[in-house]
Amino acid sequence: MYSPQKTRVGILGGGQLARMMVLAAHNLGLQTWVMSEEKDDPAAQVTAFWLKGDVNRPSDISNLLKRVDVATVESEFLNSGTLQTTSKKNRTPIYPLPKILGDIQDRFSQKLLLKQADIPTLACIPVSTNTHLDLAIQLFSLPLVLKKRRFGYDGYGTFILKTKSDVKKFTKNNLADPHGFIAEPWIKFRRELAVSIARNKKGQVVTLPLVETKQSNSICHWVKGPIKNKSFDQLSQKLQKFVSEIKYVGVLAFEMFDTPFGIAINELAPRVHNSAHYSQDALEVSQFEYHLRAILNMELPRPQLLAPGFAMINLLGKGKKSVQLSTKADARIHWYGKAENRKGRKMGHLNSLSNNPEKALEIAKASERNCSL
Amino acid sequence: MYSPQKTRVGILGGGQLARMMVLAAHNLGLQTWVMSEEKDDPAAQVTAFWLKGDVNRPSDISNLLKRVDVATVESEFLNSGTLQTTSKKNRTPIYPLPKILGDIQDRFSQKLLLKQADIPTLACIPVSTNTHLDLAIQLFSLPLVLKKRRFGYDGYGTFILKTKSDVKKFTKNNLADPHGFIAEPWIKFRRELAVSIARNKKGQVVTLPLVETKQSNSICHWVKGPIKNKSFDQLSQKLQKFVSEIKYVGVLAFEMFDTPFGIAINELAPRVHNSAHYSQDALEVSQFEYHLRAILNMELPRPQLLAPGFAMINLLGKGKKSVQLSTKADARIHWYGKAENRKGRKMGHLNSLSNNPEKALEIAKASERNCSL
Repeated sequence: MYSPQKTRVGILGGGQLARMMVLAAHNLGLQTWVMSEEKDDPAAQVTAFWLKGDVNRPSDISNLLKRVDVATVESEFLNSGTLQTTSKKNRTPIYPLPKILGDIQDRFSQKLLLKQADIPTLACIPVSTNTHLDLAIQLFSLPLVLKKRRFGYDGYGTFILKTKSDVKKFTKNNLADPHGFIAEPWIKFRRELAVSIARNKKGQVVTLPLVETKQSNSICHWVKGPIKNKSFDQLSQKLQKFVSEIKYVGVLAFEMFDTPFGIAINELAPRVHNSAHYSQDALEVSQFEYHLRAILNMELPRPQLLAPGFAMINLLGKGKKSVQLSTKADARIHWYGKAENRKGRKMGHLNSLSNNPEKALEIAKASERNCSL
Repeated sequence: MYSPQKTRVGILGGGQLARMMVLAAHNLGLQTWVMSEEKDDPAAQVTAFWLKGDVNRPSDISNLLKRVDVATVESEFLNSGTLQTTSKKNRTPIYPLPKILGDIQDRFSQKLLLKQADIPTLACIPVSTNTHLDLAIQLFSLPLVLKKRRFGYDGYGTFILKTKSDVKKFTKNNLADPHGFIAEPWIKFRRELAVSIARNKKGQVVTLPLVETKQSNSICHWVKGPIKNKSFDQLSQKLQKFVSEIKYVGVLAFEMFDTPFGIAINELAPRVHNSAHYSQDALEVSQFEYHLRAILNMELPRPQLLAPGFAMINLLGKGKKSVQLSTKADARIHWYGKAENRKGRKMGHLNSLSNNPEKALEIAKASERNCSL
């Protein structure tokens, strides 16, 4: 049982992920506070409970925490130490726990977590000097993938070194980055897959449907599902066990490579994730509600598909002055209300349902063509 | 095509119907302004675009209208003359058109509309004096149903006169009401049905699924559907024609009696309606989005059911100090965030899906039993 209106949730951050959590929270009757920089941030527009603040400033975080029963984040890149201290000071839990956020936000400790749990992922070594880089080239040979240990997203902070000249350029321009890198072998994969798993505090765990994700210029372009994959079926229980063992609370997204040798986990996102936006229209309970339920220790129902196939397409900004969206309703529009339409920026997305994933994707693509950004 | 964020919608009123319209509008990316009395009204809580105001005061209405491209109402009882004047003055259309609101908000002119369109409804005469009442008794005999011509809702303003003593009491206590009454014969019906029809400005019309509605103490308790009914199939086209002929724009709800002699329209509600709340979870497009699409002259997609059966149960206040809702997710909660939990007040509702309407209703009822209001 929970008491609506008296159950107060805080969200650090005001982007589209926060916005969609707020919309899910409104249905449940939660009092949902958003803290973000600007009054016209996507999430700030959809609630009367908004605070101006910096998600990394202790006094601002405390200002939010003292108003709520539990808080969450929309980005994994917050300062986990600050979150831990302010959470303790205000006696307001933050989920996922700041400790876990810290482990996952560093790609090297994230890898160690996965390796410890015996979850298939690519080999890697940390790289912050020339010697490390030479070693990585000896170990994995070229092409080599280098990823910033922190703050990488949508391909930003990822470097693929194919030639010696690439290595030189990287050494000269990037290697000195204070956060350092991890180096991984470059592999060929058939496609990318993703799955989100939710776990509440009392330990209930549910796995959302497996999806295929398509990146274009390192930004998610579309998602379709549900996808059947034997290698994933074997892995699925291991992932649930992993989520339980690290005592994760909330929704955790797994990005994966589907390779000829089975599935390899590419990376984790300790939050609601673009690859599960389809859930707003294709599942009885969306990932945003699952996340809220998890951090409030509410029941997590078994995911129920509302159609045999679904798809999602991101509406990416192209910089036009006047955005025009389709008035047809073949796909469901979710617009984020961002103040500026910048090239490549995620401005909204379209969800579609059909008899199978491919048809759903066709519908979403047709609808995308009717939009002008 | 429409331009999100730059397309501005105004809603006069801040109750649960306005709230659910706002939530649907957020997904479409509309800039949705709410005008209501209190900052903690249900709809005021879910948007950053709120204005304090009285929905019947011309200056307040103008204050909203000058900020938006189109406006709508959540109640049919606003002063239609005032709406018409302020709409014209500000050159901002209000849908449904104030003229139609005026015709429908008076139960007698509503009946004339239906009669003119040859739509089956009960006979009636206007009653505001003893002579009229005597005539009504002669025409229809006892029991007789008297309904206030204006401002009646949820059984409030409806009187069933079974005995001569009832007639005396009514004459003494109520007959002098300045709005007057209509008198109708009392009939036995099998069950009550309802349907909502949406029409946009360019004339596209769609009919949502037929549902059964169950009233308890004259307040809607539950809804289930879809319902099959031969008499309705014959009537359906006539209703669509009616909506077109009165050039209605928006969602129009029809409440009906299912009688041994076929269907009789009981009354109309020129707005989104409690009987179609199921649409939030059981249809691809909810009645709230249909209403917005209609007033913005966007496409109205054919209603698509997401399950073979659905149900809705109203969560009515019982006056408890601390409301407790089920944390199970067998039914979808829609909470309105009302400041006060009063007895009989609509505080929220539950939507459920299943293989058939009966099973869906069982699920919703079980979920209702887990809530304490």
